[in-house]
Amino acid sequence: MENVEQFELSKEYLEKLQQAIKELDDVFIKNTLEGINPADISTILLEFSTDESKYVLDVLENEVSAEVINDLDEDIRSKFLKTFDNRQISVMLNELDSDDAVDIINELPLKDREEVIALLENKEKAKNILDLLRYEEDVAGGLMAKELIKANVNWSVKQCIEEIRRQAENVEKIYSVYVVDDQNILLGRASLKRIILADDHVQIKDLYDDEVISVETYMDEVDVAEIMRKYDLDAVPVVNVQGKLMGRITIDDIVDVITELAEEERQMMAGISEDVEEADSVWMLTRARLPWLIIGMFGGLLGAQFIGVFEEDILLVPAMAFFIPLITATGGNVGIQSSSIVLQSIANKSVFDDSFLKRITKVLLVAILNGIVIAGIVMGLNLILGQEVRLSIVVSVALFTVVLLASFMGTVTPLVLDRLGINPALAAGPFITTANDLLGLLIYFSVAHLLYYS
Amino acid sequence: MENVEQFELSKEYLEKLQQAIKELDDVFIKNTLEGINPADISTILLEFSTDESKYVLDVLENEVSAEVINDLDEDIRSKFLKTFDNRQISVMLNELDSDDAVDIINELPLKDREEVIALLENKEKAKNILDLLRYEEDVAGGLMAKELIKANVNWSVKQCIEEIRRQAENVEKIYSVYVVDDQNILLGRASLKRIILADDHVQIKDLYDDEVISVETYMDEVDVAEIMRKYDLDAVPVVNVQGKLMGRITIDDIVDVITELAEEERQMMAGISEDVEEADSVWMLTRARLPWLIIGMFGGLLGAQFIGVFEEDILLVPAMAFFIPLITATGGNVGIQSSSIVLQSIANKSVFDDSFLKRITKVLLVAILNGIVIAGIVMGLNLILGQEVRLSIVVSVALFTVVLLASFMGTVTPLVLDRLGINPALAAGPFITTANDLLGLLIYFSVAHLLYYS
Repeated sequence: MENVEQFELSKEYLEKLQQAIKELDDVFIKNTLEGINPADISTILLEFSTDESKYVLDVLENEVSAEVINDLDEDIRSKFLKTFDNRQISVMLNELDSDDAVDIINELPLKDREEVIALLENKEKAKNILDLLRYEEDVAGGLMAKELIKANVNWSVKQCIEEIRRQAENVEKIYSVYVVDDQNILLGRASLKRIILADDHVQIKDLYDDEVISVETYMDEVDVAEIMRKYDLDAVPVVNVQGKLMGRITIDDIVDVITELAEEERQMMAGISEDVEEADSVWMLTRARLPWLIIGMFGGLLGAQFIGVFEEDILLVPAMAFFIPLITATGGNVGIQSSSIVLQSIANKSVFDDSFLKRITKVLLVAILNGIVIAGIVMGLNLILGQEVRLSIVVSVALFTVVLLASFMGTVTPLVLDRLGINPALAAGPFITTANDLLGLLIYFSVAHLLYYS
Repeated sequence: MENVEQFELSKEYLEKLQQAIKELDDVFIKNTLEGINPADISTILLEFSTDESKYVLDVLENEVSAEVINDLDEDIRSKFLKTFDNRQISVMLNELDSDDAVDIINELPLKDREEVIALLENKEKAKNILDLLRYEEDVAGGLMAKELIKANVNWSVKQCIEEIRRQAENVEKIYSVYVVDDQNILLGRASLKRIILADDHVQIKDLYDDEVISVETYMDEVDVAEIMRKYDLDAVPVVNVQGKLMGRITIDDIVDVITELAEEERQMMAGISEDVEEADSVWMLTRARLPWLIIGMFGGLLGAQFIGVFEEDILLVPAMAFFIPLITATGGNVGIQSSSIVLQSIANKSVFDDSFLKRITKVLLVAILNGIVIAGIVMGLNLILGQEVRLSIVVSVALFTVVLLASFMGTVTPLVLDRLGINPALAAGPFITTANDLLGLLIYFSVAHLLYYS
């Protein structure tokens, strides 16, 4: 057991490898990387230049290179792919499951795709890939692989095990054997455990479980993830509208979907408009951040125009300006809190949603409680600190109103966005903060104007 | 195939069930729920009162009730558990895997735990549960189940299949057979597929894979999740410091960990201090939201004090007050963007982190670009709109400085929090917004004071 623990990288190790690349010492590279998990080799390549990486990938066996490429991040992978010709790419794709192969083909320039598929040695894989290319990337059909083990309902266990032996060569992980009829209609599943434990002469039809959860090819990946999470599935069969078995989705792909969705939500909440990470270029990072900063800026300028209307009030009571940040910050905080709670409800889709009215009533009750506490404390402190009574009232009344309205806005906006098919996480980001800043200013100065001039 | 599609709930269905409960019609309830996935029954129970649910659970077979209880959310489950006596609970736990049983035991009052374990019929399960209770809930030991299939390295495939037959009764999903020596030291793994495909007389030692990835009992759940995601594992064996096989963690538990971590992060980013959801009580929701609202409020009051220092400047140039929201909003937006990008890097732990200096240099470059654009546009618009030149300069200089400093703060804060063992998502929430509001005001009024009085 040489490598039970996770593989640990060291700078020294890397430098030795880079030296070997420089000296074209293929034997050293091969020996050093022998038995190292492809996922770890991918990590090593991140530290190398594209040329160095290309050299390493050429030295490794096709099967390993293919896995390494498969494990790379999309943006780094497309850089690598450019250094390979179409024949080399098709040799690697031969080694991958159809779903992973399709992901890579989708990253190739349009003109190369057909050639790469035509060059594939395994003609069945080529056919499978062409089948899968018909689906959008974010539906069940785009996530599934064609590789799976299936058995006809009329077979015996003996026949089934022989078939598994034949089919298993192409299927890395088996999970279940899917049971179909002569028309390839999915009837149920039999776990490998049950097949292994059964006598040879038992019939599949007497052993399989006819209550199998399946998904249809056009189901959204978010719903597939939710079903697999809810029912603790390792794999789920994918059927077409006629109920025919088209492929299967395995849990590792769903783990990636869940991780990506969480990242997407984080970026939306932070007002980042592209899928960037720290390692990306200064230019990409700037481009991803500017749109929301500019929207926020226009919000701020609009706010300036708005306050400008009340210039005379400020001249009269300059202390009125002191509380602008308190009002806008409270509105922003309340809005984001409200949105994120709705976001959570949307994510954990409940089958029975409360009615809209019930929801809003509850939100307003919470807001009233929060508002009373916040406005109360501020009133107390303002009076203690010797602030003018009238201004103290204005600030607290405005605060209370802002908490109420920001709660309402923060709750309704994600619901509306979700209804419109827009990612509701957008509402828990700078969008709601900017809107609530303006709302807060409107309320604050209106209340002030009313109380001072009435 | 009666139930290939996901189960669909209807109000009608529910009402019929509730009617049956009222009429104590056990036969109807049993027949209606027969064959329905326990996860779906859990969903149904959410709509019922605790008494109704208890009635349904009593009617169902122990095995099904146990799964239903296991699938419930923690907070709802503890309400249900109160309606059962210790004997009933122990009967249910008998049907669950050790890891799930431990989760439920941890939710029981301290005084009941020992009794429930003592009442367990399956004494091996009782021992397993006691073993698992020693671990914290958020480390590998707390996630693992004791149920697994293991084979001695000296066995033949025939012996191994016989053992699987014997052990499989307690193990729902097999994935791999773990290979150990006489001291129970983990040596490697053999996939079920390989065992099924091998001849009976082959020795396990000639067939097993000695490069198995394992985790140690005390490894943090976040790291376990990352390893399972990286290496696409369905299950990972857990070993103690001596390398002895202690249990295994399956991917369904990790999917739950990933989902929970994403929820926790969302709540932190939104400034919600407890694990709440929309369905919780008004009181709980208020309590979860108030702490950050109050901190934000004190930030706002501090800001008010601060602006108060510059009261005379505002009297002189009231337009200065107009741009307060622009400055604070920009600081907040930039800060959250910066934090969330660092958060992402922390989540996808890179093995080779860039040096701190390199990181900060890049952040500042991006900030300079963003700052120039924002400050430039604002300057242009202010001049076009006829704003005073000196104030326009003040606003743009302050904006540029705020973008720079907020980027710096937003990057450094999560890194420092992470180093201190605090969840860095805290930094991408109201914390950074409040801090940046104050920073922004400080910069703005200082710049203004300098430019007007120099």
